[in-house]
Amino acid sequence: MNTVLEHRTWRYATKKFDPSKKVSDKDLETLLEATRLSASSYGLQPYHIFVISDQETKEKLKPVSWNQSQITDASHLIVFANATDFGEELVDDFLANIGETRNVPLEGLKGYSDFMKSKLMDLPAETKSNWTAKQAYIAFSNMMQAAAELKIDTCPMEGFESDKYNEILGLTEKNLNAAVVLPIGYRSDEDQTQHLPKVRKSSETLFTHI
Amino acid sequence: MNTVLEHRTWRYATKKFDPSKKVSDKDLETLLEATRLSASSYGLQPYHIFVISDQETKEKLKPVSWNQSQITDASHLIVFANATDFGEELVDDFLANIGETRNVPLEGLKGYSDFMKSKLMDLPAETKSNWTAKQAYIAFSNMMQAAAELKIDTCPMEGFESDKYNEILGLTEKNLNAAVVLPIGYRSDEDQTQHLPKVRKSSETLFTHI
Repeated sequence: MNTVLEHRTWRYATKKFDPSKKVSDKDLETLLEATRLSASSYGLQPYHIFVISDQETKEKLKPVSWNQSQITDASHLIVFANATDFGEELVDDFLANIGETRNVPLEGLKGYSDFMKSKLMDLPAETKSNWTAKQAYIAFSNMMQAAAELKIDTCPMEGFESDKYNEILGLTEKNLNAAVVLPIGYRSDEDQTQHLPKVRKSSETLFTHI
Repeated sequence: MNTVLEHRTWRYATKKFDPSKKVSDKDLETLLEATRLSASSYGLQPYHIFVISDQETKEKLKPVSWNQSQITDASHLIVFANATDFGEELVDDFLANIGETRNVPLEGLKGYSDFMKSKLMDLPAETKSNWTAKQAYIAFSNMMQAAAELKIDTCPMEGFESDKYNEILGLTEKNLNAAVVLPIGYRSDEDQTQHLPKVRKSSETLFTHI
C-alpha cells in the first residue's frame, strides 16, 4: 500500500487517548505550519485557531463536550473558530499581506480587492458565517491529515456546545464561533476501536463517473 | 523540509492546467480511495462525488464556472455534492453497513441509531444542508491533500453557479447540491502563479496558545 492510503487507513477517530503522551514542540510546530498552509477561498483564512494545552481550560470544556474523555486526555485540544462577521478589513489585511509577501504595489490589486468585496461584503450575516465555517473545515481536515502523516492521533468532533465554548474561550466578543474541534495526541492501547474495520460507503455508492 | 510540509508547499491553486496531461487510472483510483476514507460526522458521508472526465460535460459547466479555463483544461473535474435533505435511511443504511462490515447484530446498534436520529432528523432543512456541506468540505480538503501527495495538481473552486451545476448534472431531483468543485490534473509550465510565494496569515495572527 502506498503512503497516501497508509496514512488514511491508520487514522481513526480516537476514542481513548493515552494522557501520559504529549505531542512534542517540534511535531506541534510542523502540524501548525501544515495547517497554516491550508487553502481557503481567495486565501482569506477567515478563522482563528486555538491550541489548548492548559489542563484547567480542557477541564472546563469537557462538560460542554458531551463529557468526552478525549477533551482532557488528549495532549492538545485544537478549536477551529470561524469569523461570525467581517467587514472590509478582512480583504484589506489580506491585500496588505499580498503586497508585502510578493512585493507588489497595492494600487495594482485594487480590481481584485473590489471584486472580492463585491462578492463578500453584502452577504447576509448567516451566509457569511456558514462560508467562514466551511473554510475552517478545510483547515480542520488538512490538520487531521497532517497529524496522521506525523503519526499523531486525532478525534474529529462536532459533539460539543459551541455557545458554551464561545463563552468559556471569550469568542463571541471577537466575532468568532467554535465551529469544530480536534483533540490531538496518542491512542491508548486500551482503545479497542482502533482495531475495528472502517465503515465507508462503497466506491459504487459514493462516486459517479461521467 | 519533511514531506508533511513539502506536499503542502508544493500545492497551489493551479490557474492553468496542461490539457495534454491526464491523471492515470491507477492514480485516480488511489485518489478516490483516499477520499472514500475521509472522516465525516458519525461516519455518515452525507454527500455524493461526481468524477467528470467527459469533455462535453466539462464544456457545459465552464460558462457557469465564471468561464475559468481549469474546468475544461483539467484532466478530471470533481464535483462534491452535499445532500440537501435526508431522512432515516441515511442512518439506517449506515447501520446496515456497520453490521455487515464489522459483523455485528443490528439489535446491538439500536441505541446508537436512536441517538443519531434524535440529533439529526428534526433539524431544519437549511441546517441539515449546511451540515452535510461541511462534511463534503472534509472530503474535499482531504482529496486536495491526497492529490498533492500524488503530485497531482488541483484548483479548489467556489466560483461557480451551483444552481446551474444542479440543473446540468441533474442533482436537484436527487436531493443533492453542488457544494464545491476541484479540477485535478497537471500544471502548465506557462502558469506563472506556481512561482509566487504563498500568502498566509502569520502564525502569531492565526493561532492563540492557551
